Order: sequence, then C-alpha cells, then structure tokens
Amino acid sequence: MAKHKPIYPLTLSLLTLSLLFSSTLQSPLNVWPKPRTFSWPLPQAILLSPNFTISSPPHQYLDAAVTRYLHGVLNEHHRPLVPPAANLTSSSPLQTLTLAVADLIAPLHHGVNESYTLSIPAAGAYASIAAATPWGAMRGLETFSQLVWGDPARVASGIFIEDFPIFEHRGVMLDTSRNFYAVDDILRTIRAMSENKLNVFHWHITDSHSFPLVVESEPDLSGKGSYGAGMEYSPENVKTVVEFGLEHGVRVLPEIDMPGHTGSWAGAYPEIVTCANMFWWPAGSEWGDRLASEPGTGHLNPLNPKTYQVIKNVINDVATMFPEPFYHAGADEIIPGCWKADPSIQTFLANNGTLSQLLEVFVNSTFPYLVSLNRTVVYWEDVLLDAEIKVNPSVLPPENTILQTWNNGPNNTKKIVSSGYRAIVSSSDYYYLDCGHGDFIGNDSTYDLPPGTDQGNGGSWCGPFKTWQTIYNYDITYGLTDEEAKLVLGGEVALWSEQADSTVLDPRIWPRASAMAETLWSGNRDETGMKRYAEATDRLNEWRHRMVARGIGAEPIQPLWCIRNPGMCNTVHPF
Amino acid sequence: MAKHKPIYPLTLSLLTLSLLFSSTLQSPLNVWPKPRTFSWPLPQAILLSPNFTISSPPHQYLDAAVTRYLHGVLNEHHRPLVPPAANLTSSSPLQTLTLAVADLIAPLHHGVNESYTLSIPAAGAYASIAAATPWGAMRGLETFSQLVWGDPARVASGIFIEDFPIFEHRGVMLDTSRNFYAVDDILRTIRAMSENKLNVFHWHITDSHSFPLVVESEPDLSGKGSYGAGMEYSPENVKTVVEFGLEHGVRVLPEIDMPGHTGSWAGAYPEIVTCANMFWWPAGSEWGDRLASEPGTGHLNPLNPKTYQVIKNVINDVATMFPEPFYHAGADEIIPGCWKADPSIQTFLANNGTLSQLLEVFVNSTFPYLVSLNRTVVYWEDVLLDAEIKVNPSVLPPENTILQTWNNGPNNTKKIVSSGYRAIVSSSDYYYLDCGHGDFIGNDSTYDLPPGTDQGNGGSWCGPFKTWQTIYNYDITYGLTDEEAKLVLGGEVALWSEQADSTVLDPRIWPRASAMAETLWSGNRDETGMKRYAEATDRLNEWRHRMVARGIGAEPIQPLWCIRNPGMCNTVHPF
Repeated sequence: MAKHKPIYPLTLSLLTLSLLFSSTLQSPLNVWPKPRTFSWPLPQAILLSPNFTISSPPHQYLDAAVTRYLHGVLNEHHRPLVPPAANLTSSSPLQTLTLAVADLIAPLHHGVNESYTLSIPAAGAYASIAAATPWGAMRGLETFSQLVWGDPARVASGIFIEDFPIFEHRGVMLDTSRNFYAVDDILRTIRAMSENKLNVFHWHITDSHSFPLVVESEPDLSGKGSYGAGMEYSPENVKTVVEFGLEHGVRVLPEIDMPGHTGSWAGAYPEIVTCANMFWWPAGSEWGDRLASEPGTGHLNPLNPKTYQVIKNVINDVATMFPEPFYHAGADEIIPGCWKADPSIQTFLANNGTLSQLLEVFVNSTFPYLVSLNRTVVYWEDVLLDAEIKVNPSVLPPENTILQTWNNGPNNTKKIVSSGYRAIVSSSDYYYLDCGHGDFIGNDSTYDLPPGTDQGNGGSWCGPFKTWQTIYNYDITYGLTDEEAKLVLGGEVALWSEQADSTVLDPRIWPRASAMAETLWSGNRDETGMKRYAEATDRLNEWRHRMVARGIGAEPIQPLWCIRNPGMCNTVHPF
Repeated sequence: MAKHKPIYPLTLSLLTLSLLFSSTLQSPLNVWPKPRTFSWPLPQAILLSPNFTISSPPHQYLDAAVTRYLHGVLNEHHRPLVPPAANLTSSSPLQTLTLAVADLIAPLHHGVNESYTLSIPAAGAYASIAAATPWGAMRGLETFSQLVWGDPARVASGIFIEDFPIFEHRGVMLDTSRNFYAVDDILRTIRAMSENKLNVFHWHITDSHSFPLVVESEPDLSGKGSYGAGMEYSPENVKTVVEFGLEHGVRVLPEIDMPGHTGSWAGAYPEIVTCANMFWWPAGSEWGDRLASEPGTGHLNPLNPKTYQVIKNVINDVATMFPEPFYHAGADEIIPGCWKADPSIQTFLANNGTLSQLLEVFVNSTFPYLVSLNRTVVYWEDVLLDAEIKVNPSVLPPENTILQTWNNGPNNTKKIVSSGYRAIVSSSDYYYLDCGHGDFIGNDSTYDLPPGTDQGNGGSWCGPFKTWQTIYNYDITYGLTDEEAKLVLGGEVALWSEQADSTVLDPRIWPRASAMAETLWSGNRDETGMKRYAEATDRLNEWRHRMVARGIGAEPIQPLWCIRNPGMCNTVHPF
C-alpha cells in the first residue's frame, strides 16, 4: 500500500521528459552492464545448435570459463520477464563461437586490457569474440551468454558489440570478520561479480571481532582469534577462492587491517595489542576518549618489536597465499584512546612523541616490507586524511600507494587525487551496502524514546539505505579535472558485516552492486549525456531476474507488474 | 568499519544505567517472547530421555502440533551461542510431558484463551503443561521446545512458567499481489510466526498488481489478473495454508482489498473498474489529480450493479475458503482522480453527489453482506479517517467493525478508539517492514542529483528502515486512557511487496517481527518498568540464531562477537 507524495527536485527539463519516456520503448534485449557499443540493426535471432561449441586457444583459466559458459548457454534456457522482440529467423543454427585472444600470457592484474569484440552474423553458423587478453575474452563470453535465451536456446544475431570498461578497478568489498561467511558464499559472490563484469573481490578478512584466516606461520592468530572451528579460512580455502577468482576474471585482493581493528590478534598475542578486550567507550568518558570506533577494541602496538615479527610472518604468508600485486593494509580509524591506554606509548608521548609519529613508526616498519615483496599498498584514506592521526605524505610514495576513500563524498576523492595519489572510491554516502539498517549497539538508548520523537536515520550512522538508484547515479570523478580523474582507478561497493551474514549476503549486494558495475563499465548516461536511469530500471529488473534464476538471491526492485507494463511505473513530472 | 559518533538522547538516568548494565549478566536461558512469569530459582537441567513422549488429549490440530514438537525436541539438538549456565543434574531423564487442556472445543478465534502453565520438576520424570485451550497448549509446547538444547538433548528443570499474552491480536501482514510468494514461503512464515507466538497471518492477497487467488465462481479474476500459471493460489493451496495455520495456532485472515487497489480485476471485468490501466500520475497534473496512490491504477465502480455481482461471488468463495470470523475488506487509499475518470461517476458528481457518498454506496452494498455471513469486518482506517473520501461512522457499527491504523502514529490509534472502534495497530512509522529501501518508481528523478544533495530518506516515503529496536520500543497504546486501551486488539507488522519477494522474505520479516511479538506478548519493560532493550538484544541474538537453525533466514542484528562478549557491545553513556 500506500505511497505518500514523493519529493521531487525542482527542475527536470522537457527534453529529459521526452527522453525518459521514449527510452522505455527500446528493444528489451538486455546485457548488463550495457556494452559501450551495441549494434543490432535488425532485431533477430537464430537457434543455438544442440552441438554448439566454443573454440578457444588453450589457457589454464580461460579453459574453465569456456567450459562453464558452454554448459551455461546450452542449459540455462532463460525465460525473460518480457520476451525480446527479436524475430527467430530460419538461418542455420549457431554452431560455433570462436575466441581469438591477442595476448594469452597477460596476467590478471590491475589495468589488464579487458576489451573484446563480439560478432554474431545474421546468417552463418560462426560467431566470434576477439579479445586482447583471456580476461577480456571472459567478459565477451558473459556478454554472449546474456544474448542467449529460450527453450530451445536462441541467440541474438546480426549483432556486433565492441566493449571495454571506463574504470579498471570495479570491486566488491566483503567483511568476513564481524560475521563469518562460508567459502561457498564467497565463491557465489565472485561468480556473480564476474557475471556483472566486476573484477576485484576486496576481501576484508580480519578485524577486531574475529581473525578467520589461518596463517600457517602464526597459527594461533586464527586458533585463538577466529570464531571457532568451521569458521576459519584455511590456506586450501584461500587457494580455492583465488583460483576460482582467476577462472572468473576476478582478482582477490586481501586486506589484513592494521594497526587498528586488531582486537582479534590479542587472543594469540596480548602483548602486541593495546587496549585489547576493554569496554569500547568507558562510562563517563567523552566520545573523543573512546577506545574504538565501535565495540571491539584493540590496536597493534607500534613500539613493541614483537609486533613486527608477527606482522612479517602474516605478510609473508598472505603474500604467498594471494599472488595479487595489490595488498590492502588497512590503516583506518586509529583511535587515540586505544594507543594512549598503553604504558609504553604513554612514555613515548610523555617524551614529546605524537600519535601521528607513532603511526609513522608503524608505517615505516611495514610499508617498505610490502613494497619489497613487489606489492602496491592500498590504505584507507585515514592514513593521510584523518583529522588526528596521520602520516606525512613523504612516507607513502604515490607510485607504491593507493588510497581508498570512504568519507566525505567527492571531497575526499578530490583531496587524494589532487595530492597525486591514485584513488579507489567507496564513498560511504553512496557505496556502503550495509547502511540504513540501524545500529547494532546493544542498548542504544536512541530507541528508548516516546513516539513522535524523530527517528532520524534509524540509528544508522551512515543511513539512509543506499538504493540502487543512489549507487547508479554517483559519478566517482565528480568535481575533478581531467588530469585528476585519471588517478581514480575505480570504485568498490562495501558490505560491512555487523548486521550481515549468509542469510542476507545476496540481497544486500545484488542488484545494488550491479548498479555500480554498469556505472563503472559503461557509465550511467546515454548518448546524449542524460542519466539513463529510467531505461536502466527495466534492464536491471530483467538482469535481477536472470541473476535469481542463476542462483543469486538478488532482491527485487519493483513489482513484477512494472516490467510487464513498460513505462507505467515511471514518473514524468517536472516538479 | 566505521561508526561515526552516534546521536544520544539527552537524558538517561543513573538508575537506568545500572539496570541496563546488570541486565546483561542475567541467566542466558532464553525463551522468546519472554514469558510473563518465569521461575527458575536454581539453574539446572536434566537430560531428555531418548524415549521421551508427549501425552495429550486427542484433538485434530493439537495432535499435529504434538507430533511436530516431539520430533523437534528430540532432533533439534540446538547449540546456543552462549551455553546456558544450567547445571546438568543426575536426576533421571525427562520421560513425559503431559498436556492438560481445559476446553478442547474452543475454536481458534480472536480472543481465545492462550494461557498456559508449564512445569518441569527438578527431580522426577514428568513435566506438564496445563492450558485453557489447545491453542494455549501450542504456546506452551513452543516454550518447552525453547528450553531444550544440546546433544544429548537436555531441558531446563526446576522451572515453572505461567504465561499469557497482553494483546490478543498479534499478526504479520504479507502482500502477495505486488510480487508473488510460493505457498511454501507462506507456510514457512506461518511456522515462524507460531514459534514467535504470533497468531494472525493477515494475508493481503489481492491488489492492483495481480489477483493471485483462484475464486472458483469467478475464475477469470485470477485467470486474467494473476501473474500467470504457477503464480496463483488455488482453493487447495488456501486449504493447505488455513489447515497449516490451525496446526500452528495461527489464524489466517484474508484481505480482498476494495474498492481501491483493484486494477487487477480489470483483466476479467474492465466494465467494473474505473481508470484501469491508466498512467498513474498523468504528466502535468497535480499530485491531487493522480489516479492512484502508486503505479497500478483501478478502483471498483460503486455505481455499476455488475460490481456487486462479482464482489458477492468473491466474498462467498473467500468466506468458504477462510473460516476465520474476521474478514478484511481493505478500503484504503481511495483516490479521487480514479473515480472521477469514469463517466457514470462524473454524472453522479454533477448531480451533487460526493465521493464520500459514493464510498458509502459501496460500503452499504458490501458491509451488510459480510455481516450477514457472520463476519467482523476489518477496514483500513482510511474508510473513516481519510481526509477526502470517508463514510459516516453510522454506516459502520463498532460491534461489527475493526479499524486497522497505519498513518500518523499513536494519533490515529487515539482517534479510532476514542470513537469507540476497536483498533489493530500497524503504524507505518513503526511496523512497516518494507520501509527504508528506497522507491520503486522507474525514473524517480530524486536520484538524478549532483553529489552532496540531501538524500533524505533514500527515496522511501516511509523511511527510514524500521529497526528491530524501533519496533520493540513502540507502545501501541501510547497516549490512551485505560478504557481506550482496551479497544486496541493488538498489532501487525506489515510487509508490502513492491520491493520484496521470496529472495528477501525471511530477513525482511525476521527477527523484526519477533521484536513486536515479544512487545505484544509480555511487553517491552522489566519488573521495574524500564525498557528491557539491552537485555533483549542478547536474547534476540540467541533467538535469531535458533530461528536460522530452524530454517528461517532471519537477518543478524550484531557481530557474533557481541553475544560472545556479553555487555561489550552496549553503550552506557548518559548523553
């Protein structure tokens, strides 16, 4: 039931109106994210031969993708919500899709060429994908799979697609520390990412709440810091995830957050963790004197040599387990109270040391080691932009450092790139998938109020919920010069898991991550430069429907009625 | 990551603080909703005999419940997140639970006595439940099942519980028109309701978007108005749902919304539906001139005799399929523009008729018929409280009429009961489970704005999201006199399905409906009158964990760390 009057912006030109309205009448043939160029002059289709095959040059990971897609296109028999308007022609069925790959040895690294062309002739039994790399070929295979539907299976024909992404870094961040996810959950997420042409699974593995990663040289970290047997990731599990990522064209970028967010390390090594297992915000103290950003205290102690022994073991093992050249080292939310709670740090401060110097000690003792392992280090922006505790930029050369921004919308992106650093955008105002579901604090007294009291954002620091439209419409280079924009590598939606686990994993991520996927792949504007959100609604409905059929529990964005009645769920009001 | 400073109310007394803090140290033995009295002086437990049986008087529906619970307690082997502190004594295992039921023929109607006592002696092999009715016995069985855990199974002993609900109407409303739910989804929801001692499944079956109910005397309604084969509810399906409800002590209350929200009827009978299949808010028109409250137009025409032929067939069949004495007849959101679009109504209005008179015509032609079938008619409050179109109260005698409130928080509840009507509370400010996930309008231009523009409630008319705490803390008789409060039958959380279907059904409803369930069963305050939300957090964590183990995909409310570290995720700040 029951929509009260929506609030509309003040201006929406008549030009916009006509575009929005006509856009719903476009061909419903749907590829998500929308390819850069898509030529299909005569909407028609041909059958897929039951003996259809995919021919490709041998390649360890591309082989797996080919096998997967061959099985998929022959067996999916997708039933679109609205049947594509394509005429099934009497041309002979499609027999073969041939992959040509220019550079078979290109590794799946940041910036690898993901371009491809796909052509399916109107008549003739041979389709082809030409790709720069195996990873581009995988993108082309996904596109091909989305052009197939029906039973018997048919495929759009007379079609030519030339495609490549706007941004090279298109990711999903998942926090597996606050609550645990089974390996199968992670694999399903990576598969869905691949189907959305997302290419970086940023795995926020550890935090203060649990340390689920089994580090063989430091087994007590998970042994005493995980949520228990069955809630750990063994090296074999990690290998499974990394290999699965390679087979899907998805890099697996590990994050071992430190020196903050490390309470879980104290199970194994209480001596290297300051303020461990303390109440996060002692009664009577000011917010500025809290010990953690949220319940779950503990920072690594930069002054204890033992800290670095443990860290180096961790880094070595993680670098071995994750061949990915990017390494995320965290460095967010250093809380003064936690370090100040430690006697050795109190002495350091009493001798005129500062907390920022302390962080520099830590960074200078860890960053060069990561660089020596040929890693580009990703940090949360806090390491340079925090109001209280931050390092001098000279400590972090831009050629080895990338900053991931989450605060302050486009303003912090601007700060980062105007300082010469590359940026990954995960603005909490736009890209945080957990926001808007309230707070998890046990006795949050904001709720114990009489009716009529303003509920504000529902108790969520980053509320409201980021709708797919909010995500779709965010321009991650907003306000940047062309030169600055080149330093924006891309973006990541982020699912922090205080209030998420496998029960909500799929619907929290999908289809909202799909919205970002299209924006970062081919943009959110049509040929005229207008936001294509109305047309995108119908396509996202279809794509969500297909994801669900593929076993991804993406949440619905509209009544089924809306897609069955194109345009009828729109608003065309210039208010 | 990353909590910014929460916002706190200005006052929270020291008394409150001490209560909140100490409450986390209570025994973790958990029954949800918390029983009214719970005496367990010495925390101890005994084994459940492998030959454990439940003895009960024969009863068609209680038998099924006994079979179900017997299987459950023997096989669940629940593993609590925090093991209960009970000592396993060497007393002989529990052999039998005996049910005594005072009134075996009491039907499952509103106001039926649901009280029970449960005693499990410290020593001795016999436990007992004494209940006023079979339905109270089912509540006792659920409580018993929640006192059992572990492998081998053990049960709390030396315990005495006396229990009965504060409110007689404790419901969940589900909209199966905007998007379809399979029968299994409905059954699982009813089972979960029963496990939360909720007793009314309010089934909002039809609306403008689809008419999934197969009405045998009017088969075209679903034949032309449902989303298609496989997305209908046959009479056999309904019987399954109703019987399943009886076996679980859950009434199934049908709603056939009319005269608004009936666009889907136009497939079969376009002549009885005004403004059917029109664009909901024509370009250039004012909000007040829209044709529907949201996309999906159509109202039944009160001036067409054919309308009542169809309605009477529908009512007859629905009354046959649903023996429940309450019948929900909708009557929300009559939109002037829709009726005004019809020529016959234009004539009626030109002859000095009013839209409110038109609604009276409709109510006078349908309400008495429902009453003649011995139904108490539930309407949405709009029928009396709408600003524009409403009937004279004399048309709706309070003895046959119940009003369900959804607008304006406690104010409308007050209006309803102070007028002498009984009320069911589903305030959209507190009890609407769909809110806060944005709007579903296809091209909602509120999103096409530059960064930094206020996102407001994320595009959701009833945002923000209603957290479990918001729901738990709402007092549905707030501001009423004692006499007025007696007219509040209870409450319902509501899931409207514009953006929900089976992919999100469980986590949208659970555990938030559990929060209402406890508030309506035993209240939200402890013995001292203080809100018990801190203590409730730990218990709800445990209960959510148990629901998940029972196959209900309830969403998590905290990191697992929080319940493993009692009290550490609280805040005790007097801000």
